[in-house]
Amino acid sequence: MAQVAVMSPNGEVKKIDRDSEDSLNALRQVAALMLKAALVHKYDGIRFGDAIAEDDRFWVDSDKDDQQVSADELPALEDDLKKLAKEDDKVEFAEVALDDALKGVEKDQFSSELLKENAKDGKVALYKLGDVAVIAKAPILVYTDAVKNFKLLSVAGAYWKGMSSNPMLQRIYGTVFYKKADLDEDLKKRQEARERDHRVIGNQLDLFFVDPKVGAGLPYWMPKGATIRRTIERYIIDREVADGYEHVYTPVLMNVDAYKTSGHWAHYRDDMFPPMDMGDGEMLELRPMNCPSHIQIYKHHIRSYRDLPLRIAELGMMHRYEKSGALSGLQRVREMTLNDGHTFVALDQIRDEFAKILKLIMSVYKDFDITDYSFRLSLRDPKNTKKYYANDEMWEKSQKLLKAAMDDLHLDYYEAEGEAAFYGPKLDIQTKTALGNDETMSTIQLDFMLPDRFGLTYMGKDGKEHMPVMIHRGVVGTMERFVAYLTEIYKGAFPTWLAPEQVHIIPVSDDKHGAYADQLAKEMKAAKIRVVVDHRNEKMGYKIREAQTQKVPYTLVVGDDEMKNNSVSVRKYGEQDQNSMSKQDFMDEILHDIATYSRKD
Amino acid sequence: MAQVAVMSPNGEVKKIDRDSEDSLNALRQVAALMLKAALVHKYDGIRFGDAIAEDDRFWVDSDKDDQQVSADELPALEDDLKKLAKEDDKVEFAEVALDDALKGVEKDQFSSELLKENAKDGKVALYKLGDVAVIAKAPILVYTDAVKNFKLLSVAGAYWKGMSSNPMLQRIYGTVFYKKADLDEDLKKRQEARERDHRVIGNQLDLFFVDPKVGAGLPYWMPKGATIRRTIERYIIDREVADGYEHVYTPVLMNVDAYKTSGHWAHYRDDMFPPMDMGDGEMLELRPMNCPSHIQIYKHHIRSYRDLPLRIAELGMMHRYEKSGALSGLQRVREMTLNDGHTFVALDQIRDEFAKILKLIMSVYKDFDITDYSFRLSLRDPKNTKKYYANDEMWEKSQKLLKAAMDDLHLDYYEAEGEAAFYGPKLDIQTKTALGNDETMSTIQLDFMLPDRFGLTYMGKDGKEHMPVMIHRGVVGTMERFVAYLTEIYKGAFPTWLAPEQVHIIPVSDDKHGAYADQLAKEMKAAKIRVVVDHRNEKMGYKIREAQTQKVPYTLVVGDDEMKNNSVSVRKYGEQDQNSMSKQDFMDEILHDIATYSRKD
Repeated sequence: MAQVAVMSPNGEVKKIDRDSEDSLNALRQVAALMLKAALVHKYDGIRFGDAIAEDDRFWVDSDKDDQQVSADELPALEDDLKKLAKEDDKVEFAEVALDDALKGVEKDQFSSELLKENAKDGKVALYKLGDVAVIAKAPILVYTDAVKNFKLLSVAGAYWKGMSSNPMLQRIYGTVFYKKADLDEDLKKRQEARERDHRVIGNQLDLFFVDPKVGAGLPYWMPKGATIRRTIERYIIDREVADGYEHVYTPVLMNVDAYKTSGHWAHYRDDMFPPMDMGDGEMLELRPMNCPSHIQIYKHHIRSYRDLPLRIAELGMMHRYEKSGALSGLQRVREMTLNDGHTFVALDQIRDEFAKILKLIMSVYKDFDITDYSFRLSLRDPKNTKKYYANDEMWEKSQKLLKAAMDDLHLDYYEAEGEAAFYGPKLDIQTKTALGNDETMSTIQLDFMLPDRFGLTYMGKDGKEHMPVMIHRGVVGTMERFVAYLTEIYKGAFPTWLAPEQVHIIPVSDDKHGAYADQLAKEMKAAKIRVVVDHRNEKMGYKIREAQTQKVPYTLVVGDDEMKNNSVSVRKYGEQDQNSMSKQDFMDEILHDIATYSRKD
Repeated sequence: MAQVAVMSPNGEVKKIDRDSEDSLNALRQVAALMLKAALVHKYDGIRFGDAIAEDDRFWVDSDKDDQQVSADELPALEDDLKKLAKEDDKVEFAEVALDDALKGVEKDQFSSELLKENAKDGKVALYKLGDVAVIAKAPILVYTDAVKNFKLLSVAGAYWKGMSSNPMLQRIYGTVFYKKADLDEDLKKRQEARERDHRVIGNQLDLFFVDPKVGAGLPYWMPKGATIRRTIERYIIDREVADGYEHVYTPVLMNVDAYKTSGHWAHYRDDMFPPMDMGDGEMLELRPMNCPSHIQIYKHHIRSYRDLPLRIAELGMMHRYEKSGALSGLQRVREMTLNDGHTFVALDQIRDEFAKILKLIMSVYKDFDITDYSFRLSLRDPKNTKKYYANDEMWEKSQKLLKAAMDDLHLDYYEAEGEAAFYGPKLDIQTKTALGNDETMSTIQLDFMLPDRFGLTYMGKDGKEHMPVMIHRGVVGTMERFVAYLTEIYKGAFPTWLAPEQVHIIPVSDDKHGAYADQLAKEMKAAKIRVVVDHRNEKMGYKIREAQTQKVPYTLVVGDDEMKNNSVSVRKYGEQDQNSMSKQDFMDEILHDIATYSRKD
């Protein structure tokens, strides 16, 4: 097996397997150093932030007095890197006194700060390529000639140290592999990811935006994105109400005392927003989950066995503190609205209720055309039961119950020991994202702990007090993540019932056919169809192309013939044909399409 | 005119008109002192908070080691007060050294604290009635014999100093007048207020609750209240979308910098929640209004005259810091969701847009059967134009425009000079609450300031940049206040389209007719009617009465005849008759009732 020489941050060199993940990271690290060198040679007085390997790529942050590096300059920089690779240079290790290291970077406040931060006992460890150095943090490949199959991917702004109050640097991203085939596959995957990336599509279709200047991880839903979200919200509430859920609204704020009772304050505080002192002895917290709120609803009345199962549901807004670097579009946010529900049941109702929830989830998946999913039964680790809420009998009983319920429904599942929640076992429904990654979309979790901690009871048939079991369940997760997911699996071509614009009507001549188009639109709007008439003074071909770009399910062209015959000429999204239909037939078709949630592409 | 002797907190006595408001307050103050005296004499070791006159009543806070004073004891206390009044006692003024005053109340930490707080130069001013004293804060009537026409109203818990972290004292409320007729009228008004009080009805109908222990001013909407709110929300969104609004979702949090730009930080900060330091240079604020959020939506694209009027709307959640003492049910809360909208228009579009908004508001009022309202045109104070955003031309022009628009619509209005917002003139639509108080339900406000502060522009037909005008408008206000208002005007008898439970079906015998009832319910649910079948093992009379108490619009009784004829026996809310109808006729009637928003009572 091929081996490569890799240097550690202490200067030691050893040979490792070239096909290992460590070796690939070392290759990315040397590519970052080479990119920095190329930038140093190309631009006078350029300043630098980090130059590092990360996940599946490498990047270099820089800053210039004049115009920043632009995407146009990347090909030339790639050529420079190729030259550096050919020279068969070698990375040298150097431990340098901090004062000496600082002498070279007087005018570069970023490099100076990085050097100071990374100094130990007045010295810094550096990797050097000629006169260009980066701080030695992770292992690096010694010889530069391995950097052959690479590509500089993009440039983007990045705040110094990720803080929006700091200056913005320019980040150049690159990817590198030992083999050309690996690079090609990587670039193809990146292309596919870009095409499906909900942030890219979200921008093209004007669905949402996030602006860190007004709030990191806080999405703004533009009208079209909001229409999709509202349609999903109404759909899921109606489904749940029909299924016996009682929908409520509860506050996004709660006294921290409730989170002390629930245990979140002790165990989950790092993921919570800072508390607010209301100045009258009250400390309020933006809730990180809705369970304590629904417990308040339960506790508001004395409950009897006749009330169970009691199904409380809400589109509950929550706030979780995610590091700003982890935030991404609608996928990872700080403010989110969860399709949440908590069912309070007696012990002997768990099995039926579990099956009922599961049926709801699968039925909802069908309507959204989500077909690629699997069931993971997450159980307690039998070798380490101390990690979990202590009630052996409950665990044994409930794990058996869940398996029995899955068998009742003849559903395949795999068991994952050690994946249970602290407070009980759960079933996770794992979907595949558009890029093939596993994601937990829905979950059904048994909880014996919170009913105990909050002292929940109900009066049994026997006239005695009993403790209910709480089932936490989510069907489609948060609105944010679900819309991100759908955008990617649909590639932006939302099915008609979800499409923000369902019909785009183009009059052949606005003077002659505009009024007919408006009349059609009026009739459609009365039937609650979302329709736009394109009265703009543009060429018809342009208008049709634009409707396709916006992925509108139905584009109608209306001219003399259509006016005469009270018909429409229909072009479906993604199809080249244009079919003439009577107005009534078209209405029947689209209304059927909407009512059946059908997906056309 | 009759005169009474009133003592000031400095001990001076003067005669004032008995029929004045000051005299009435002095009467309430002496009644509070007398109530305290009665309590001192009746209960050994009782401790006291404040004893004061407030708004339209008086109250005394107390605390005992054994059981607290209960409502049952109020008649006996009233007798004690009558005795104190008969004795023709006189209030004496005393300025006492703090140390001496404290000697009497060693075991009463509340009184001790009050005395210390109110001491000046080591002395406290007291009003004394025999050996019982209250701190002299507001004028008091000198002679107790005027306290004849009074009533002790209720007892309720009240936190010491209004802080939920403090002990809870017992507050006894009373009302007092010089004349019996005034007392009678007051008691009648209080009875009427109690019957319409949305907090009382909200509790009876299980619509919502507020629990200061988990969050003062943060309502929990129970399933029935949530159904009403959701119905209103969907209604208003659908109306607005049909009227050309683009509904969005924007975050409840925003960087404080935006509120510095808007001016809220400088002028509105006392009403805002404390900011949250996110630790990466970001300070976030729970938004007190939605305008800066909708400005972000505007700014997200380059706008042209073709985009105007641009109508952005949202059910926007906001947070305002209200003092805990001011909070009340759904009426005054700290977390609220506003039916908010902002239209961005060119100058020459103001008149049409204003009329369009006004038409929407009046049409919505009609659907909610809100008929008692008037228009207040709030203008700049011409004598003090410096108080307002400086742009004389804009003010003159826009005030004229609004008047012209009102005239266009042939609507009566009254002008209120000096009632304009800082940033522009506005039209307030004033409704009458169930108790006859004026309340601003809807508002249309012109704003020239925020577009300027946020640098908003659009490209005009002339190819040049112009600044749009912003119109802030609310149709039904916040969901919280609107539901409180509706509850009071409807006295809890919500019209069918809003009623959380629209049909209550009672089988004569559950064994024989329960299945038929279920079948009826199933058909109704398919038509989206909210229906409950009462399968409980209770007497029919009891079930019918309960459905009336819960103000369900339609109660159906089904027995042998109904089963045989496929019919129902219908009793409408508030009517004594029971009518037999075919199932189809009933369905037609209720669906028509729902579709027309009609109000039956």
